[in-house]
Amino acid sequence: MDFNKFKVRLTEVQQRIETELSSVLPDPDGHQAVIMEAMRYATLGGGKRVRPFLLVETAQMFNADLSAVWPAACALECIHAYSLVHDDLPCMDDDDLRRGKPTVHKAFNEAIAVLTGDALLTHAFEILANIDAPAVVRIELVRELTRASGAFGMIGGQVIDIQADENARNSDIITELQRLKTGALIKSSVIMGAKIGNATERQLSSLASYADDLGLIFQITDDILDVEGKADRVGKAVGKDENHGKATFVSILGLESAKQKARELAGTAKGRLEPFGEKAQMLSETVDYILVRDQ
Amino acid sequence: MDFNKFKVRLTEVQQRIETELSSVLPDPDGHQAVIMEAMRYATLGGGKRVRPFLLVETAQMFNADLSAVWPAACALECIHAYSLVHDDLPCMDDDDLRRGKPTVHKAFNEAIAVLTGDALLTHAFEILANIDAPAVVRIELVRELTRASGAFGMIGGQVIDIQADENARNSDIITELQRLKTGALIKSSVIMGAKIGNATERQLSSLASYADDLGLIFQITDDILDVEGKADRVGKAVGKDENHGKATFVSILGLESAKQKARELAGTAKGRLEPFGEKAQMLSETVDYILVRDQ
Repeated sequence: MDFNKFKVRLTEVQQRIETELSSVLPDPDGHQAVIMEAMRYATLGGGKRVRPFLLVETAQMFNADLSAVWPAACALECIHAYSLVHDDLPCMDDDDLRRGKPTVHKAFNEAIAVLTGDALLTHAFEILANIDAPAVVRIELVRELTRASGAFGMIGGQVIDIQADENARNSDIITELQRLKTGALIKSSVIMGAKIGNATERQLSSLASYADDLGLIFQITDDILDVEGKADRVGKAVGKDENHGKATFVSILGLESAKQKARELAGTAKGRLEPFGEKAQMLSETVDYILVRDQ
Repeated sequence: MDFNKFKVRLTEVQQRIETELSSVLPDPDGHQAVIMEAMRYATLGGGKRVRPFLLVETAQMFNADLSAVWPAACALECIHAYSLVHDDLPCMDDDDLRRGKPTVHKAFNEAIAVLTGDALLTHAFEILANIDAPAVVRIELVRELTRASGAFGMIGGQVIDIQADENARNSDIITELQRLKTGALIKSSVIMGAKIGNATERQLSSLASYADDLGLIFQITDDILDVEGKADRVGKAVGKDENHGKATFVSILGLESAKQKARELAGTAKGRLEPFGEKAQMLSETVDYILVRDQ
């Protein structure tokens, strides 16, 4: 697989989302200008943009109106960016480096980092409220994104990650943790794209299963990268999980079995896309891309 | 003024909002149950509930459907509660006591406090998305609450508060700071109530002016309480502003002038309510209540 078409398309989305994010994020203004600077710092100039890519490509399968698609993708990326800012805080993962740059609490300070996360989280829903789409679609997107990112989604996963007894972690707990922490927002990317495209319940169901598999592959390969990756490619500190004695898919399954599990899931995920035929080519290649990524 | 009717009504709302909040907040569940416990800890069992009271009383002026009013009031209180949890963090105001109880980072830990704020913030919009009201009303409430609580509202005010050079603070900066930090959400309480009640633009405008004045009175009296109050009544540490060398309305205007300014604003605020006649009695008495409160 040479990924030529896929890489061209991914690069297009990455470039476009940068422009779109810049236009929906507020410009620095007022006595509180530093917060808008920090919001832009945390969001612009980097990131794989996997979630916006999934949303945009899913919506395009249904020939959705792009004027609603791009802002929704930006809202999603604001949620992802806020979660990174808060996860990097000293009281959480205590990371100094993110996307090859100092983390927000290092570049600014801790208080600004807390507030920047809050502001990005709030702004995500402001973007969704102002999308050029019927109110019923907008409110459905708000509902979907709150569900995926809240206490029963992404935040819940992060809570399990910081709370779960290291020694008591087994494959089930780690799967649940990652289903929420990483999986919920990846799933939401696909679901939001499908909802903007007015997908049927049956189509939503196939895509949800695809996204569940993809999220798990994403996390397993992340754990593999933490062991095998190079910090200059990954853009953040590697080997951290092992240093912290943290159980991961790799530490529980072993490196080879983890790779095998990811490959198996890749087959299943692509199978979910069969009903969509050629139209799902980008979503299908995303699976392979995640599987072989080096960052 | 004896406030008899007002106090009965306020107590009713305080009791009812406790029940309503308890029903819209998630029950502890899953490996992440601690986050639901912390969300409930931060929100239930106390608080003056001024914002929900304002929303409910404003909506009732327009005979609004109460099935939409109570959840909206809960969403507002979730936003207020999250802001307190984050403001109390060691990297922010570093408070150990809130509403007479240990703050969330003291009762749980810092990481849980950050995530609890995030979860309450997210949950506020989930509540609004699920209100029993037309989608256009729900999306309008989402838009209003994001605007009031984001970088150009409450968060912006908090940023100014932690960033503004202590020595450079004058009456204009402090007024702007408080208009955003406290005022925006108080204003939003009134506006959201009026929007659920389908108020006209003209009515919205009068009520917005009333709420602007009320927010400022609220902050001035807060500064006065910080000097004159007793910790056991106020429910949080007092004298903190002075200890931190923080400029307030009292330190800039002096105690007597601050009290005088609050009384003048009270007259203006009540004047804004004249078009509503008797129906605005509760909103009018709120002004006096804020003015003479001891907590």
